[in-house]
Amino acid sequence: MITVIKPGTKEQQLESLIKWFKDQGLDVHVSKGHYQTVLGIVGDTGRVDIDLLEGLDMVERVQRVSDPFKKANRKFHPEDSEIECGGGVKIGGGSFALIAGPCSVESKEQITLVAREVKEAGASLLRGGAFKPRTSPYDFQGLKAEGIEMLLEAKKETGLPIVTEIMNAEHLPLFEEVDVIQVGARNMQNFELLKELGRTDKPILLKRGLANTLKELLMSAEYIMAGGNEKIIFCERGIRTFETYTRNTLDLSAVPVLKELSHLPVVIDPSHATGKASLVLPMALAATAAGADGLMIEVHNDPAKALCDGAQSLTPARFEQLAKQVSKIREAMADA
Amino acid sequence: MITVIKPGTKEQQLESLIKWFKDQGLDVHVSKGHYQTVLGIVGDTGRVDIDLLEGLDMVERVQRVSDPFKKANRKFHPEDSEIECGGGVKIGGGSFALIAGPCSVESKEQITLVAREVKEAGASLLRGGAFKPRTSPYDFQGLKAEGIEMLLEAKKETGLPIVTEIMNAEHLPLFEEVDVIQVGARNMQNFELLKELGRTDKPILLKRGLANTLKELLMSAEYIMAGGNEKIIFCERGIRTFETYTRNTLDLSAVPVLKELSHLPVVIDPSHATGKASLVLPMALAATAAGADGLMIEVHNDPAKALCDGAQSLTPARFEQLAKQVSKIREAMADA
Amino acid sequence: MITVIKPGTKEQQLESLIKWFKDQGLDVHVSKGHYQTVLGIVGDTGRVDIDLLEGLDMVERVQRVSDPFKKANRKFHPEDSEIECGGGVKIGGGSFALIAGPCSVESKEQITLVAREVKEAGASLLRGGAFKPRTSPYDFQGLKAEGIEMLLEAKKETGLPIVTEIMNAEHLPLFEEVDVIQVGARNMQNFELLKELGRTDKPILLKRGLANTLKELLMSAEYIMAGGNEKIIFCERGIRTFETYTRNTLDLSAVPVLKELSHLPVVIDPSHATGKASLVLPMALAATAAGADGLMIEVHNDPAKALCDGAQSLTPARFEQLAKQVSKIREAMADA
Amino acid sequence: MITVIKPGTKEQQLESLIKWFKDQGLDVHVSKGHYQTVLGIVGDTGRVDIDLLEGLDMVERVQRVSDPFKKANRKFHPEDSEIECGGGVKIGGGSFALIAGPCSVESKEQITLVAREVKEAGASLLRGGAFKPRTSPYDFQGLKAEGIEMLLEAKKETGLPIVTEIMNAEHLPLFEEVDVIQVGARNMQNFELLKELGRTDKPILLKRGLANTLKELLMSAEYIMAGGNEKIIFCERGIRTFETYTRNTLDLSAVPVLKELSHLPVVIDPSHATGKASLVLPMALAATAAGADGLMIEVHNDPAKALCDGAQSLTPARFEQLAKQVSKIREAMADA
Repeated sequence: MITVIKPGTKEQQLESLIKWFKDQGLDVHVSKGHYQTVLGIVGDTGRVDIDLLEGLDMVERVQRVSDPFKKANRKFHPEDSEIECGGGVKIGGGSFALIAGPCSVESKEQITLVAREVKEAGASLLRGGAFKPRTSPYDFQGLKAEGIEMLLEAKKETGLPIVTEIMNAEHLPLFEEVDVIQVGARNMQNFELLKELGRTDKPILLKRGLANTLKELLMSAEYIMAGGNEKIIFCERGIRTFETYTRNTLDLSAVPVLKELSHLPVVIDPSHATGKASLVLPMALAATAAGADGLMIEVHNDPAKALCDGAQSLTPARFEQLAKQVSKIREAMADA
Repeated sequence: MITVIKPGTKEQQLESLIKWFKDQGLDVHVSKGHYQTVLGIVGDTGRVDIDLLEGLDMVERVQRVSDPFKKANRKFHPEDSEIECGGGVKIGGGSFALIAGPCSVESKEQITLVAREVKEAGASLLRGGAFKPRTSPYDFQGLKAEGIEMLLEAKKETGLPIVTEIMNAEHLPLFEEVDVIQVGARNMQNFELLKELGRTDKPILLKRGLANTLKELLMSAEYIMAGGNEKIIFCERGIRTFETYTRNTLDLSAVPVLKELSHLPVVIDPSHATGKASLVLPMALAATAAGADGLMIEVHNDPAKALCDGAQSLTPARFEQLAKQVSKIREAMADA
Repeated sequence: MITVIKPGTKEQQLESLIKWFKDQGLDVHVSKGHYQTVLGIVGDTGRVDIDLLEGLDMVERVQRVSDPFKKANRKFHPEDSEIECGGGVKIGGGSFALIAGPCSVESKEQITLVAREVKEAGASLLRGGAFKPRTSPYDFQGLKAEGIEMLLEAKKETGLPIVTEIMNAEHLPLFEEVDVIQVGARNMQNFELLKELGRTDKPILLKRGLANTLKELLMSAEYIMAGGNEKIIFCERGIRTFETYTRNTLDLSAVPVLKELSHLPVVIDPSHATGKASLVLPMALAATAAGADGLMIEVHNDPAKALCDGAQSLTPARFEQLAKQVSKIREAMADA
Repeated sequence: MITVIKPGTKEQQLESLIKWFKDQGLDVHVSKGHYQTVLGIVGDTGRVDIDLLEGLDMVERVQRVSDPFKKANRKFHPEDSEIECGGGVKIGGGSFALIAGPCSVESKEQITLVAREVKEAGASLLRGGAFKPRTSPYDFQGLKAEGIEMLLEAKKETGLPIVTEIMNAEHLPLFEEVDVIQVGARNMQNFELLKELGRTDKPILLKRGLANTLKELLMSAEYIMAGGNEKIIFCERGIRTFETYTRNTLDLSAVPVLKELSHLPVVIDPSHATGKASLVLPMALAATAAGADGLMIEVHNDPAKALCDGAQSLTPARFEQLAKQVSKIREAMADA
C-alpha cells in the first residue's frame, strides 16, 4: 500500500502516522522526494482503515498495490475455472452455454413450452424468474414458490438445468433442486445474502450492480468464495450512464477484464442491458467475439398474443437464428 | 400512461395492442397525428408490464404520466411529515436534527465519550455502526450485537436516541431498543429487507443508492410504507459519477426535489459523500441552506491518537463549530 | 411533440399555453384523461423553445415524437451510405476498413515505417496525430503542420489515404491533401468547427464526446450535413462512467443503435476506449461482430525501444494477427 | 510521479524502463517491496507520455504526485484572487456578484428592460446570450453581432457590465466592449479557443464541461493563464449523471474543492443545472452557503406573456426575493 503525504506536513505528524502503521504490525518504507514524501506500507494491509487514512489532512492519496481479492484472483489460480451446472452442462474453461427463457414464469404450460423450444434451438440452461425484484411494491412480484415448482416441472420434461433468482436467504430451502442460483444486480452488494450463499454448494450466477466497478464485482464473488463456495459465474448486464436510448450501457470490456483478473467464467445478458429486441442479436455476437463463456437471452413464447412478437424477448425462432450465428462466431474464433 | 407508436406500424398490429390494453381493463384514447400515433391509456396502469411494452417493435416510447408512488406522494399528503425519533426528538415539519457519531462503534468507552461530547455540542441523535457493510469480506465487519449493546449504554448515559444500520431482517430482534433504523445505500433496493421493515413501527433512515434516481428512492420508501410503516426519513449521501476528487458527488438538488415530490423529511450526509473532512463543513452549510431537515455527521474522538485530527470524521470541537454555523444559517432562513 | 400538463393546472393557464403554440403556427390536439391532460403538437415544432416549455410550472414533461435529425436519418435514406475515403477505399455499405497508425506522428522515418508495416498487415487507411488535443498546456501538442507533411510523405510512399485530427477551422488549408478529417471527442459539440467542415467536401470522422448521447452525436453530424457535406463516418471511442479499470467504457451498442437510426457508417476505436493493449484485440473482434464498418487501431513501431512492446499501441506484428482474426469474424458473419 | 510495476516483471524489462526515464533527464528511486516494486520519478515529469506508460504490460499504475496545474494552483498563490469585471464590479476575494439576465437576447427593448429590473433587484452584472450553442443546427442560434449591440445598449443605459458567450475566436473583435467573456460547457476543452483567450486581457467565465473533472477544469484555466491572461472565474453548471428529474446534477462540492486547489473565484449557475424554476432558489442559497463567489441566474421579463411566469427563468420579482435571501445567508456566514 502506498500513502502519498501532502507537502508541508510537519515531521511530527508524519512520525505519528508511521507509528500508527507500525502499531498495526506493518513495515513502513519512507521515500522522500524533492516534492513529495511517499510511504510504502508492507505487511497485511487488509485491516488498515483506508477511509480513515484517506480522510487525514496530511494524506494526499492512498493506493493499494496488491489486489484485495484472493480466491477469485487469476494470479493464484492461473487456469480457467469450469463450473458444473448440473445435467452435464458446464460454463467456462472452453465450455460455452446459452441460457434462455422468459423473464417471468407465468404458468406451467408457458414455461414447459418455452423450455422445449429453446432446448431444440440450442439452449443448454433454462432461465425464468419466480421471485421478481420490482422497483414498485405495486408491481407483480412473481409466482414465487409456485414459479419454482413450474421451473422444476419444465426441467423434468426437458432435462435442462434451471437458473433462477434468489432475493432472500430464507428462501434457500425452495432452491434445493434449482441448478444455478442467480443474484440480481440490486443484490450484488447484499453482503448478508452473499455470505449465506457461500455456505451452499450451488453454482451462483452473480450479476454486476448498476453502478459497480469490476473490482467490486470481484470482491462480491470473494464474499461467496470466502465461505467455501467457489462456483461463481459472473454476469454483465449493463451499467447506468447518461445514455437514454438503451436501457443500460452494456460494458463488454467486462469480458476481457474479468478474464485477465480472474479465473471465473463470464456470461453476458444483452436482453436486460439493451432493453430492445433489435439489439439483442448484434450484442450477443459481440459478446461472443469478446470471449464470453455464455449468453443469457430472454425468450418468450405466446402464440396467442401476436403482441409478443418483437418484444425485448425474442421468439424461439429468432433465438434459434441467434444460436446459429453465435456458433459461427465461435467456430471462427476457434479457427483463429 | 402514454404509448407512442412507431410510424409505419400496421393497423392490425396496432389493434392487437389496443385489444391487449383493453383486456387488462384499461381505456385507450387513440390520437393519430400527421407523423405519429399516440395511445393514452387510462385506468389502473400499475399492472402493465412496461418492460414488455417498451420492447415491442411497434412501440417508440412509453411514459407514465401519473406518479407510481402513492403514500410518499405530496399530492395526496400536502403537509410535511414530522417523524418522531424517540426521546422527544423530531425530524421534518420544521424540526431539524443533527445526527452525529463515529463511523464504527469501537468500544463502550469510545462511544460513550463521543456521545457525551456531541450531545454537548448540539447533536440530537447519536449514530454509530455496529453492522458494517464492507466491500471486502476480509475487512472488519463491525462489533455487531455487541456494538448495539454499547450504543444502548451510550443512549442510557446521555439520553440521545440512536441510529444504526441493519443489513439483515433476521437481526431485527437486536434492534428492539434502537430508535431509528438505517438502511444503507447498498440495500436501498433490497426489497425483501424493505418489506420486513414495513412491518415494524420504527423510523427508517433510508439512504439513496449510489446509482439510484430520486424516483427509485421514492419507490423504495413506498415499499416500506405499503407495509404500514410510514415513518421514513430520506438520506442523500452522494452518487457515483466520473469525478474522482470527492469520494462521491453529493446531489443537493435531492433536497428540494424530494420535498417537491414527497412530504417526508430529507437528511444529508456530507461525511460519506465527500470523504474529506475539509469538505464536510461547507457542504453541511449548503445542505442546510437548501432546506434539509437534518445532517448526519461523522464525529470521532480519540485523544490518544493525534492521527485522527483531520480525518473524514470531525473532532467534537470541529463539530461544535459546525453546529453553531448551521444554526446561524437556519436563523437567517427563518428570518427571510 | 407531446406536452404533459400537471394536474391542478387552471383552465386559463392551459388556454394561454395552447394559444402560444397556435401563435407559432402549430396545431394542438388536446386529450384530457382522468388524471392528466396531454397536448399533442403537430407542425414544424423544430422552432419551439423546449427549455422554456419544460421550465413552465404547469408542464410535467415535454417529448418530441419525431426525430430532430433529418439528413442523417435512416427513415429518409433507407440504404446504407458508403463513404469514399480516397485511393479507392470505402467505408460503409458493406465496405469495411482498418485504420491504423501511431497516436502521434513523431518523425518522417517513424510514420513511413509504420505506414509500410500496417499496409502490409492489412490496413486500408493510415492514422496519425499532427495536432494533439492535450488536457495540459504544458504537454506536447503535436508536430502540427510539419506532422501533416510527414503523413503526406507516408501517403505518397504507400498509397494509403490518411486520417488526421483538426482542432481549428483556420487550419483547414493545411488539410487540403488529407483524405479524412477527424473531429475529436472534445470537439464533437464545437458547433463553429462543425459548420466550417460542412462547407468542405472532405469525409469527416466524427468521434462521440465523452458524455454525449447517441442522439447528440447524430445532431452533430446534422450540423455538418446541413452545410452540404454528407460524408460523415461516426466513431465510438468510449464514454465516461464510474468504472476505473478501463480508461473509458466502450459502448458497443452504439453500432446497432446508430445503424438503426442512421444510414451513416460506424467505426470503433478500441485503443483509446480501453487504454490497454491487452484489451484491444477482444474489443476489436466484438466491434466487428456487432456490425461495425471499420476499426481504428493504434499501432506503434519502435524496434529500438523494447519498451513499446505492450503499450496501448500494438506492434505491427500484433496488428497483423488482429487483422486476420477480424477477417475470420467477418467471413463467419457473411456466411450466416 | 509514481509508477507501480506488476509482480513477475523481468529484471531486464524493468531496467529498460528505468533507462527510458533517465534518458528523459529524470531521477528514478526504486523501492522494492515484498509484493511490488514502485518507481518514484523525480524531475520535470510534465513531458512524460503517461498514456504510453500506462499502456505498458509491466506497469500496474501511474500516478502524478504533484499537481499539473501551476498558475491556477493555490500552493503557489495562497491568497484568493479578485477579478475586476468592469464598472468597479469584482468577483472573488470576498466580493460576491449576482449575474442575472435572460438566456437569449431577444430585442433591444427586452434586454434593456430586464437590465433595469435586475439592477434594481440587486444584480451587479448583466448576462444574455448573443451566440447560442444549440444541439440542433435547425434551432435558433442567437442574434449574434446584433445581440451584442443590444447588450452594449443595455450596459450604456444601466451601467451594468455584461457577460456573454463566445463560440469562435474569430468573433473576438465583436467582444471588444464586452466586460466578461463566457466559455460554455461544450467548449471547456476547445483548446484552440482557450489559447486565443489567453492572449486577451478580458476576464473569462469558464464553465465546467458536462463530463469533466475538476482537475480538467483547472487545466483548462491553465491553458488560458499560460497565455498570460490570469483573470479566470470558474462556473459550475451541473454535470451529467443517470438522474433524470433535474436537467443535470449540480455538483456543489466544486465550490470548496476548487477553492482548496486554486485561488480563483467560483460562480454557480443553478438555472442551467436544474432546468426548473422551482429549484433555482434553494440551490442558489445552498451555493452561497457552500462559499461561492457569485451566482448566475436566468431572469426573463415578458409581462405580455403570462406564460413565462414559472419558466426556468425567474421573473424579476422572484429574482429580487432570491437576492434578499442570498444576502441573509451571506450575513449569517460573515457573522459566524
